[in-house]
Amino acid sequence: MKKIESVKEFGGWLNRYEHQSKSCNCTMTFSVYLPPQAEHEKVPAVYWLSGLTCTDDNVRTKAGAQRYAAELGLALIMPDTSPRGDDVADEVERYDLGKGAGFYVNATEEPWAAHYQMYDYVTQELPELIEAEFPVIPGVCSVTGHSMGGHGALICALKNAGQYRSVSAFAPICHPMVCGWGEGCFSNYLGNNKDSWKQYDATELVKAGAKPIPLLIDHGTGDEFLSGQLYPQDLLDACEAMEFPINLRMQDDYDHSYHFISTFIGEHLKFHYNHLKA
Amino acid sequence: MKKIESVKEFGGWLNRYEHQSKSCNCTMTFSVYLPPQAEHEKVPAVYWLSGLTCTDDNVRTKAGAQRYAAELGLALIMPDTSPRGDDVADEVERYDLGKGAGFYVNATEEPWAAHYQMYDYVTQELPELIEAEFPVIPGVCSVTGHSMGGHGALICALKNAGQYRSVSAFAPICHPMVCGWGEGCFSNYLGNNKDSWKQYDATELVKAGAKPIPLLIDHGTGDEFLSGQLYPQDLLDACEAMEFPINLRMQDDYDHSYHFISTFIGEHLKFHYNHLKA
Repeated sequence: MKKIESVKEFGGWLNRYEHQSKSCNCTMTFSVYLPPQAEHEKVPAVYWLSGLTCTDDNVRTKAGAQRYAAELGLALIMPDTSPRGDDVADEVERYDLGKGAGFYVNATEEPWAAHYQMYDYVTQELPELIEAEFPVIPGVCSVTGHSMGGHGALICALKNAGQYRSVSAFAPICHPMVCGWGEGCFSNYLGNNKDSWKQYDATELVKAGAKPIPLLIDHGTGDEFLSGQLYPQDLLDACEAMEFPINLRMQDDYDHSYHFISTFIGEHLKFHYNHLKA
Repeated sequence: MKKIESVKEFGGWLNRYEHQSKSCNCTMTFSVYLPPQAEHEKVPAVYWLSGLTCTDDNVRTKAGAQRYAAELGLALIMPDTSPRGDDVADEVERYDLGKGAGFYVNATEEPWAAHYQMYDYVTQELPELIEAEFPVIPGVCSVTGHSMGGHGALICALKNAGQYRSVSAFAPICHPMVCGWGEGCFSNYLGNNKDSWKQYDATELVKAGAKPIPLLIDHGTGDEFLSGQLYPQDLLDACEAMEFPINLRMQDDYDHSYHFISTFIGEHLKFHYNHLKA
């Protein structure tokens, strides 16, 4: 692991690292924000999973999350959204498949399977590295994310009972099996047997009996992708049917951008803080 | 004036406009953040002047200022850093001259004079437009900015006693006449007679007896441009000699980036709020 950038912010340090990923079989980049409290004690960690086209840079630059992380004493862990490199399969003309669009699944189909193992990366390899190398409290973490990364946060939490204390999401893709973004990635990464898709679909995971975990979701009513890609009602219906507690809020007029995220990231981090400190 | 973008953030609206500028003789773009309070009352305005290479987009995306503006009930006015358009003179191979580098002066030399009238634009034309079109309290405003825009904020306030209630700056170019960025722009925009440069130099304006105004400046000790371009000590010396009150803070380890700005923008906006509400 090599530190490639270090910037002071809100009394803590925003650092960027490169490392050789076993899961993704390539060099991966991630950012970590360590709050001032981490200089003298271990702190809880919140993982942020980003959306389509993003790297680790978008959230660290645009979300305004570091201010709240510094106030609350939380580390922020910000991975990339896909494997990278010249030998990594891609669809250069599409923003929603290949690089920048890993969808947080383990690909089984060629040419993707060689590197697109983002599910293992974000749920196993990266947490192990973070706990070994940084002043975080082992096993005390939560997960959140935006859009494709909101989907990622939901499936990571729903598939790994006990690994996360809480989960939240901004404008998540709630039912990827039935939306264009999800179908495009799942059919390429996982093949045409839709049964294999259900393991990476939040709505299907709830229907299949996932164990409840504190869950907060915000959607904007002005989000251009709300009706065509995100399908929050499907997740709500599944939660109701399964008596799975969910706090899903529709925020008037907010869109899909980081301006929406910046408005509510403070509430999300306080939500996670309350569960991480409990 | 035409609204070209509108995004909800922190309960208010972040809007972007185009208009035909008389000063700059071209179409100019600016952004305005209106806090929620502006829906039912007029609010004070804080002008933000950006640094080299920026447009109005950098600060609205990266600084985290809207959160504080919403809390305090301040409008943020964010102009571009130069005239734009195909017929506007430029040095395409330089980031520090021409487009993106207007330096907040009125150019007198060709080929710049036809459009590079940023001083008139930010001190006269834009405030008149803002007061005519937006719910701001006439004559109740402050000014701040970053780097080249910190220089801009300082000269706008020092040259126009009574126009602004307070001024602040992040990593401003304090003595442009003696640094590479300033010399490059002043010699092109204003010609070789250095006497004409002094009217746009904060250190020289203080030496010449500018009227005191509440003034807050932050510099980072880790700023790569601190010793070669910014020269805060020159401004401090001038202020001491002239008994001009200044609060110039050196912030340990912070750099020149928006991560530095985001850390202290809240304090700057509260500083302005205290003078705007007084």
